[in-house]
Amino acid sequence: MLVESTDVPPGMDYRQAARKAVAMCVSDFAAKGVRPDSFMVSLGLKRGTTQKQVDGLAAGFRDAEEEWGVRMVGGDTSEAKELVVDCAMMGFETRIVERKGARAGDILVVTGPFGYPPAGLKIMINGARAERSFRAKALKSVSRPTPNLEVGLSLSRYLTSSMDSSDGLARCLHVLAEASGVGFELDRMPVAEGVESFANENGLLLQDLVMAGGEEYVIVGTVSPEGFSAAARAAKTAGGDLITIGIATREKGRVSLRTGKSMRIIGDWGWTHLASPKQSLRSLRTS
Amino acid sequence: MLVESTDVPPGMDYRQAARKAVAMCVSDFAAKGVRPDSFMVSLGLKRGTTQKQVDGLAAGFRDAEEEWGVRMVGGDTSEAKELVVDCAMMGFETRIVERKGARAGDILVVTGPFGYPPAGLKIMINGARAERSFRAKALKSVSRPTPNLEVGLSLSRYLTSSMDSSDGLARCLHVLAEASGVGFELDRMPVAEGVESFANENGLLLQDLVMAGGEEYVIVGTVSPEGFSAAARAAKTAGGDLITIGIATREKGRVSLRTGKSMRIIGDWGWTHLASPKQSLRSLRTS
Repeated sequence: MLVESTDVPPGMDYRQAARKAVAMCVSDFAAKGVRPDSFMVSLGLKRGTTQKQVDGLAAGFRDAEEEWGVRMVGGDTSEAKELVVDCAMMGFETRIVERKGARAGDILVVTGPFGYPPAGLKIMINGARAERSFRAKALKSVSRPTPNLEVGLSLSRYLTSSMDSSDGLARCLHVLAEASGVGFELDRMPVAEGVESFANENGLLLQDLVMAGGEEYVIVGTVSPEGFSAAARAAKTAGGDLITIGIATREKGRVSLRTGKSMRIIGDWGWTHLASPKQSLRSLRTS
Repeated sequence: MLVESTDVPPGMDYRQAARKAVAMCVSDFAAKGVRPDSFMVSLGLKRGTTQKQVDGLAAGFRDAEEEWGVRMVGGDTSEAKELVVDCAMMGFETRIVERKGARAGDILVVTGPFGYPPAGLKIMINGARAERSFRAKALKSVSRPTPNLEVGLSLSRYLTSSMDSSDGLARCLHVLAEASGVGFELDRMPVAEGVESFANENGLLLQDLVMAGGEEYVIVGTVSPEGFSAAARAAKTAGGDLITIGIATREKGRVSLRTGKSMRIIGDWGWTHLASPKQSLRSLRTS
């Protein structure tokens, strides 16, 4: 469910919002290894919504249909106090990748780097400064989130657990750890190019941008050590990447990051709906 | 999609709202003759939502699961400016009853009488007066809308066209007429017991309550003259009723009501989202 006050940053138009609502579902399907077939949309429209905005929504749904080969098959329209676009997606598959299958020793992987969307939001909302091409990439990652469906589908037989990272990497790791009864030890953060300089330039913590941002629509999952090379080849063939960032451990619920000789605990922050802003943006603490 | 500001009247609690969101879908499935299997729910919750309210939502979904034999299989939770409960329901059937199948000469039927929900809203919102037992029935029709799924399923093979009347009978007749390329001539209004006295007592127009109200969750449809008696028996066996109110005619898009010797045109009013209040409540005009 895309809700204007929480999911639509300033500057995002109705066409982008409609496409994003579908992207949010596609991202879940990619992480679960299921090809989506069709979707329904329930719209909550504000009184005073213009014809141009309605046309924008329609164009955004068409964009999504073409981009991911899905069909819009129905929906509902209501009046609401803010724009709401709820997309319910369907696919037909006998097996899905669950959150609970990670085993100690499995390799922790992500399908893309982190940091562009939170940087983009800092630029849009807080006027953070950025070099021209970084700025363009960061803003685009916000207005045009692009889950890689084909990569997700290609990985489904190799993933022992997975979910999409839309609520932030730290949150995601804790959810997977809890569901699987494992811990995770990261030996690196998957930092997108330019994010470190952006953080330094704007006095931001790199780990907040990478671990606590969200909106990346990247897959976070685990593969067994035996399955790893085949999985990496499959991702490459599908036009993507498999980035290793650590391993699953026996220490239930403990998520940590090795930096040099020290280990830092990664808390369960990231975006939690209805949590206070303070709670959802925490910095790392050294263990 | 159930939205607080348009679908939740004052006094309706979260449990009733959750059940109603599912009822809205069940009503559509009943009208289409498809047994629902499962549903997903996307929630938009206001900041400050209490545990008690969340428990209420859960209880309402359980009520619906038991009442209509459906299973909640997933969903999403977001923060929003008002309560939003979007229910996406699934069922598996090779055939559905469409809106476009009515032919001139078909018998126009409804599966229940009209007027309780609009009367209930008048009582709740405008303080309209009503006799004790009528008041109870009218209020219950609002807080606990009850589509009759079994009746809908029993009728599916006989209906040549149908839809659910949640947006009001007049609106519904115009939508069916347009989709099927027919007109409708009513020889009576399906007035629920006590609605006429209620209208008189409160200076309201009976036809507004019956034709332009909405929220009845009754099936409005057509059956061929040959199929009628079998359809009526099927409805009775399923515990319901088939009330004839007129016939389909060749006069495309013309919906009229015979009262004594005169014919009145029934306009396309009823509840249209985003329409102005004036537009959505029109009185009958004599042709």
